[in-house]
Amino acid sequence: MKEEKIKQNNSEESDLAITKRSKDYSQWYLDVIEAGKLADNSPVRGCMVIRPNGYAIWENMQKVMDKMFKETGVVNAYFPLFIPISFLNKEAKHVEGFAKECAVVTHHRLELDADGKLQPAAKLDEPLIVRPTSETIMYDTYSRWINSYRDLPLLINQWANIVRWEMRTRPFLRTMEFLWQEGHTAHGTNEEADERTLQMVNVYKKFCEEYMAIPVIAGMKTESEKFAGAVYTTCIEAMMQDGKSLQAGTSHMLGQNFAKAFEVKFLDQTGERQYVWQTSWGVSTRLIGALIMVHSDDNGLVLPPKLAPTPVVLVPIWSSEEEKAKVLPVASTIAKSISEKLNINIKVDDREMRPGPKFYEWEKMGVPLRLELGPKDLASNCVVAVRRDNGEKEKVDQDKIIEYIPKALQNIQDSLFNKALKFQKEKTKKVDFYDEFKKIMDGDGGFVLAHWCGNARCEEQVKEETKATIACVPFDQKKEKGKCIYCGEESEGRVIFAKAY
Amino acid sequence: MKEEKIKQNNSEESDLAITKRSKDYSQWYLDVIEAGKLADNSPVRGCMVIRPNGYAIWENMQKVMDKMFKETGVVNAYFPLFIPISFLNKEAKHVEGFAKECAVVTHHRLELDADGKLQPAAKLDEPLIVRPTSETIMYDTYSRWINSYRDLPLLINQWANIVRWEMRTRPFLRTMEFLWQEGHTAHGTNEEADERTLQMVNVYKKFCEEYMAIPVIAGMKTESEKFAGAVYTTCIEAMMQDGKSLQAGTSHMLGQNFAKAFEVKFLDQTGERQYVWQTSWGVSTRLIGALIMVHSDDNGLVLPPKLAPTPVVLVPIWSSEEEKAKVLPVASTIAKSISEKLNINIKVDDREMRPGPKFYEWEKMGVPLRLELGPKDLASNCVVAVRRDNGEKEKVDQDKIIEYIPKALQNIQDSLFNKALKFQKEKTKKVDFYDEFKKIMDGDGGFVLAHWCGNARCEEQVKEETKATIACVPFDQKKEKGKCIYCGEESEGRVIFAKAY
Repeated sequence: MKEEKIKQNNSEESDLAITKRSKDYSQWYLDVIEAGKLADNSPVRGCMVIRPNGYAIWENMQKVMDKMFKETGVVNAYFPLFIPISFLNKEAKHVEGFAKECAVVTHHRLELDADGKLQPAAKLDEPLIVRPTSETIMYDTYSRWINSYRDLPLLINQWANIVRWEMRTRPFLRTMEFLWQEGHTAHGTNEEADERTLQMVNVYKKFCEEYMAIPVIAGMKTESEKFAGAVYTTCIEAMMQDGKSLQAGTSHMLGQNFAKAFEVKFLDQTGERQYVWQTSWGVSTRLIGALIMVHSDDNGLVLPPKLAPTPVVLVPIWSSEEEKAKVLPVASTIAKSISEKLNINIKVDDREMRPGPKFYEWEKMGVPLRLELGPKDLASNCVVAVRRDNGEKEKVDQDKIIEYIPKALQNIQDSLFNKALKFQKEKTKKVDFYDEFKKIMDGDGGFVLAHWCGNARCEEQVKEETKATIACVPFDQKKEKGKCIYCGEESEGRVIFAKAY
Repeated sequence: MKEEKIKQNNSEESDLAITKRSKDYSQWYLDVIEAGKLADNSPVRGCMVIRPNGYAIWENMQKVMDKMFKETGVVNAYFPLFIPISFLNKEAKHVEGFAKECAVVTHHRLELDADGKLQPAAKLDEPLIVRPTSETIMYDTYSRWINSYRDLPLLINQWANIVRWEMRTRPFLRTMEFLWQEGHTAHGTNEEADERTLQMVNVYKKFCEEYMAIPVIAGMKTESEKFAGAVYTTCIEAMMQDGKSLQAGTSHMLGQNFAKAFEVKFLDQTGERQYVWQTSWGVSTRLIGALIMVHSDDNGLVLPPKLAPTPVVLVPIWSSEEEKAKVLPVASTIAKSISEKLNINIKVDDREMRPGPKFYEWEKMGVPLRLELGPKDLASNCVVAVRRDNGEKEKVDQDKIIEYIPKALQNIQDSLFNKALKFQKEKTKKVDFYDEFKKIMDGDGGFVLAHWCGNARCEEQVKEETKATIACVPFDQKKEKGKCIYCGEESEGRVIFAKAY
């Protein structure tokens, strides 16, 4: 069992240096999380505490996505945390996929033993598992809710916590407990379920690109990488700064697999009883891991303005009480005007500290735009604006600040996306020879577009020899004759290989 | 073990009659939940499924309260679902309060046995409990986050699911798993923690009265009713239509009890290490139970406009295709204008059904205001508006509808509150003799204002003999000499006795 832990740190005010990416990428990631006050270790192995700064990002993500889901007709509901052990066994592939990593509740009471230690007491007749995903418990209910074609489509989402007993954990990217949303729909036709599967992976793509400023490749998972119980799995894949791929969201076409296992049937227009067609789709707090790994730098967190809990901070500067008395009221007026006219969350940092450490702190926290206001700026009726993403400074007329802010934030948002897209394109290579393939995977990594014959054995061998897996078969794959990178057999097109998180 | 279950019902379209309150209040409650599509039974004992209509009410509650909390400086975070068993044992009263009702995770894997049945495998070194409340896991973390007075106050809330292994369950009111928020604050002085305790119970009072339209009595719990581990507990109590009291929210002053158990210390301004003073406070999906029990009637759910997922429904009426073609476009224009100008969620029910069953359905779902638009209304440029709370009908000029709706909704909101307040006042009686007290508790119930000497033994005896407990010692209790309703000893004021949910 291995757990990558954030360093324990006893002081909120500390300014521990952040490890450079080039020196130790894994440690850099953990340092950014600590410096940005995003998460902390917990006394429970593999579970993290999501700190207010991290949770506020999740709240922003939820707000945006929840609206996007609802615009497609989805409604929210809530299903039980616990699942009877027998439910898992109803879909053969599903149980294979999840049985090895389930937290199992076996007792419902604690009693003190002779040594004064609390021990489990009152054994359950049937143990319960803590949901690793909710297909089984939800579809058991769907079987009672759905009777006729008039009950379809059923489009339900839930925001919930999930537990998977992972052996190797890393904050946000892979934790034993995580937060997510899981959408579960039921349809009257195969086609409609196909469409919904695609629709939702496209919602995720839009969210990642427009809000997270992360370019993603949408495509299909291979048979060996698909969800346990699905007919096929679609996904979006994002490239991290270390050249690895991160699966940022998945949308599964379940066909009638679960409908048959849970007897979810409906009376169609012709009066015939049919099994429904289903989809499920989800994203999790893992997205915060992606956000960190794509945009942040050696100075700490970098956040896209659209998801930053505090898009703008204003740091007033003074070196005497007299200056302070002049600067603070103006700072407060400017901040109030930005907050009220633009409905933007802005903080005024008027703590009794030197400005340097304040700048440094907000930089580590990833605040996209910093405004500085000192006595000189007061005299020239200006504010100094500093971008977190590229460090550029600009003097802005105080009268123009209301026009300036939204443009500057949009610029930052666009720059972040374009920078990430440029990086992704540069690190995506067409490769036709296995030697070159291996060299890339041994080196800087990235996405490798290579031909694959479709045989799971080749996929397996490549994984064993290079640790690279097939991230996806991109939707925009070109028809192109070629030879499998591993076995040389005929192939119809290139797929994306990468090392994966 | 007893579980009050919603009737299983195989059809979404059914119009099962709702049991009258006068006939069977408990069954009425379950029928309203079913007819309003608020919740359903689940295959896990004591756990319910919160259906989209019920969850949408919870979402509205969350939105309002989250804003109210944040306005007092609170931020959200997320702590682990699991708590090491040893943590619970650190605060003596706390373990007493919760050990008997904990779900215990003992294994982290499932394996098939010889009969092909899944069985728990891979035993944990230390069992974990599923949080019944999060004081212990949070304050363990607080002990690392808090170092100096500059880290205080720490004001954190979390929205989470909670598990308490209750023997007797009832949808929303008492379920094994429920959703809630729990605020946990740490302060540098006793006074500040006192103030926060009071501040939050007042936030709850404001929310209940202004949004839920439920009048509540705020006060103190007695020693025997207080939270396990608190110095004192404040609460709000609401009267249900059966005369019982429902504890709608609690705010606890924890003093230094948990700080001492978890070593949460800070360096004060004088350089001395002190334990922090703490509070915790919460409300849960139980509030939905209160909402149902206070306002609903024999025709089903009644919702206050401020929390109704759909405050207005528009039912177009036609008896020929020709009429339909005329009515529908106008209905749609009116709905669009209401939605856009007033930002109110409105549904147009254009299903191919007769209007009667539609009216009946929306009535059962508690929609506060129903608009009807038929050919005659079209001719007279009118809309008919029908209030859910009192059935009053009104013809409204189509040109005036935008002015009319907000006023009508506010009227409904106010009427619901006033009706509930009138009921509460009528069923609150000053009682000085134990015979009368017993008669009331044997009969219609209600709040009884009676003198109590402060002795826990009298409280216990009264409970045993009448099932009534002390709902609270109201904050606005008048100083008044009197004699304890049970023992006749001197008393300084009246407390509220009631049977409780």
